[in-house]
Amino acid sequence: MYIRQDILDAVAAKKMPEDRTFGKAVLPAICVAQYKNGQWSEVELGFDRDHRLSGGSTAVQYAQSIFEGMKAYFVHQVTPQIFRPYDHAVRFRRSAERMCMPPVPREMFVYGVNLLSRLYADVIPREADGALYLRPSLYGTDYSLSIEPSESYQFTIHAAPTIPFSKDMKSVLIERRNSRSAVGGTGGVKAAGNYAAGFQSLTRARQLGCATSLWLDPLESKYIEELSLMNFFVVREGELHTPTLQNSFLPGITRQSLLTLAEDLGLRIAERRIDINELIKEIETGSVTEAFSCGTAAVVSPIRSLKEASGTEYVFSDEPGPITRTLRKQLLDIQEGRTADRFGWMQSV
Amino acid sequence: MYIRQDILDAVAAKKMPEDRTFGKAVLPAICVAQYKNGQWSEVELGFDRDHRLSGGSTAVQYAQSIFEGMKAYFVHQVTPQIFRPYDHAVRFRRSAERMCMPPVPREMFVYGVNLLSRLYADVIPREADGALYLRPSLYGTDYSLSIEPSESYQFTIHAAPTIPFSKDMKSVLIERRNSRSAVGGTGGVKAAGNYAAGFQSLTRARQLGCATSLWLDPLESKYIEELSLMNFFVVREGELHTPTLQNSFLPGITRQSLLTLAEDLGLRIAERRIDINELIKEIETGSVTEAFSCGTAAVVSPIRSLKEASGTEYVFSDEPGPITRTLRKQLLDIQEGRTADRFGWMQSV
Repeated sequence: MYIRQDILDAVAAKKMPEDRTFGKAVLPAICVAQYKNGQWSEVELGFDRDHRLSGGSTAVQYAQSIFEGMKAYFVHQVTPQIFRPYDHAVRFRRSAERMCMPPVPREMFVYGVNLLSRLYADVIPREADGALYLRPSLYGTDYSLSIEPSESYQFTIHAAPTIPFSKDMKSVLIERRNSRSAVGGTGGVKAAGNYAAGFQSLTRARQLGCATSLWLDPLESKYIEELSLMNFFVVREGELHTPTLQNSFLPGITRQSLLTLAEDLGLRIAERRIDINELIKEIETGSVTEAFSCGTAAVVSPIRSLKEASGTEYVFSDEPGPITRTLRKQLLDIQEGRTADRFGWMQSV
Repeated sequence: MYIRQDILDAVAAKKMPEDRTFGKAVLPAICVAQYKNGQWSEVELGFDRDHRLSGGSTAVQYAQSIFEGMKAYFVHQVTPQIFRPYDHAVRFRRSAERMCMPPVPREMFVYGVNLLSRLYADVIPREADGALYLRPSLYGTDYSLSIEPSESYQFTIHAAPTIPFSKDMKSVLIERRNSRSAVGGTGGVKAAGNYAAGFQSLTRARQLGCATSLWLDPLESKYIEELSLMNFFVVREGELHTPTLQNSFLPGITRQSLLTLAEDLGLRIAERRIDINELIKEIETGSVTEAFSCGTAAVVSPIRSLKEASGTEYVFSDEPGPITRTLRKQLLDIQEGRTADRFGWMQSV
């Protein structure tokens, strides 16, 4: 494929950004395609600054906008490899359908993430826990205040070199006041509107020294759903437990990968409804000994404790537990190319 | 205030757009201000095309974005007048707070809508039911994939000359499947994320020949909340009934104005929880004889019937009822300057 010289020059001049905190150093070149009159254009490389949209667009006014989060790894591999790109493409399509947007063909989606990862191969951090974070998005670009689905759309892929979040054990606020998603709402897909809606809770969580919030079900505020952007696991008497998927929270690809890995390791697994108040009792009696969150950005991230808004704290453990550590290591071994990709999850770009 | 010559030229060249369907003919000049380093810039006039934002912004990625909808009228008035601008400014501030955004000072908000209405005075439709629709918005502009509130923001005001929706009696789909807002969610403010989330239901409604959907409460799917973008009223045995405000739907400024007008007219009023199944019985027994929706865009819009997804239809009336017509006329008489503004709702620009 032909790549414009100014893009190649910009990429060649690009040094590894110093701030590789998650999501901060977004690179200037992107992949982009336009949807007009019922047709997709080809995916091209371009500069973000040349593909901006109006504040009066359907995306900005009504949040007709979805995204995916995925990673290209280039640690022990010979060429960069992307983790489960086709599974992300399938979920992206489901999100588009829920938000009344045209599907992005799976091949186009995967072509785009491959192209951008190849272009930026030299700025993918090659250290353990480093990756190129990829952010495919789709949003309505009609300049219209009419409250209905857009007729024109833009598909973009942004990328940012990233090293993971802090590995410190974190505390999590039990969000008993607000719900993340309505029944039949958009919680089960990666719609833009799900995220800023959680900023108020995130702010409260941080004020209480917590990293994020734990969301409960929308009807009874009783059953655990997920953390903002991450799924939730606990270890109870040696068994790995995670909430049964509901339409109100996201079916994580990392979540599903960890269940596959755990099964392969011979761990006992339970997908079940987890009652927050029962869980608290089990933490106090010592039958639940580990908890962690998982997602594309954080991979596997151990949780030290849950906190109530009142300050009351329930501590799982002061150090990452053995099952948390094993699952994290096993997954990163595959992602970073230290071990055989026995599930066929990695795709060379 | 100094106005750039190219903006004056563009405005002078602007003819009344032919398509004045609601929200379609958005004008090219806007008001705009930037928030950076904790400070607001001055409000300026500019072209929309010069103030575009990245698809990688907090607005597009996470829907950290709010808006207001309001109107400038220029029918019988000597100069354009805006309906309740300070009340819109107050609600805008509440929306910003919920979405963790900096407040736009009330004076700045009102200055902006006045400025744009004066600039575009010549394209405000001067016929009955015509107005300049004004759309103040505030959204996060950080180019960052970090999932937290933006540090930079843009405040814009777009405008579109508009004639109202069709005056045909409309049918409304009872949305029994999806909820519009979670408990403690963002339904009570004008957050962008509330709107595209309803497009799926809107599509289903249109397939059934309905204009929009009627949303029920998020916990029991039993109590009426609102239509997409409009509040809901019925007339029962001569009394005007509307759902009690809940945090899960929008406290409409038109809703509040109609309650004030109705009280002034000596009508009996009840704000109460309205059970959808009881309402259906009351339609069938003939005790409920009128229904209408209200909002800035549609003002007062009579509802012919409610429909179930199965196709079953409950008809209020085939013609707009007397209370619907009276309230509509009384409100438009004030807005269009045919009668004294006895509540102090109109502000000259």
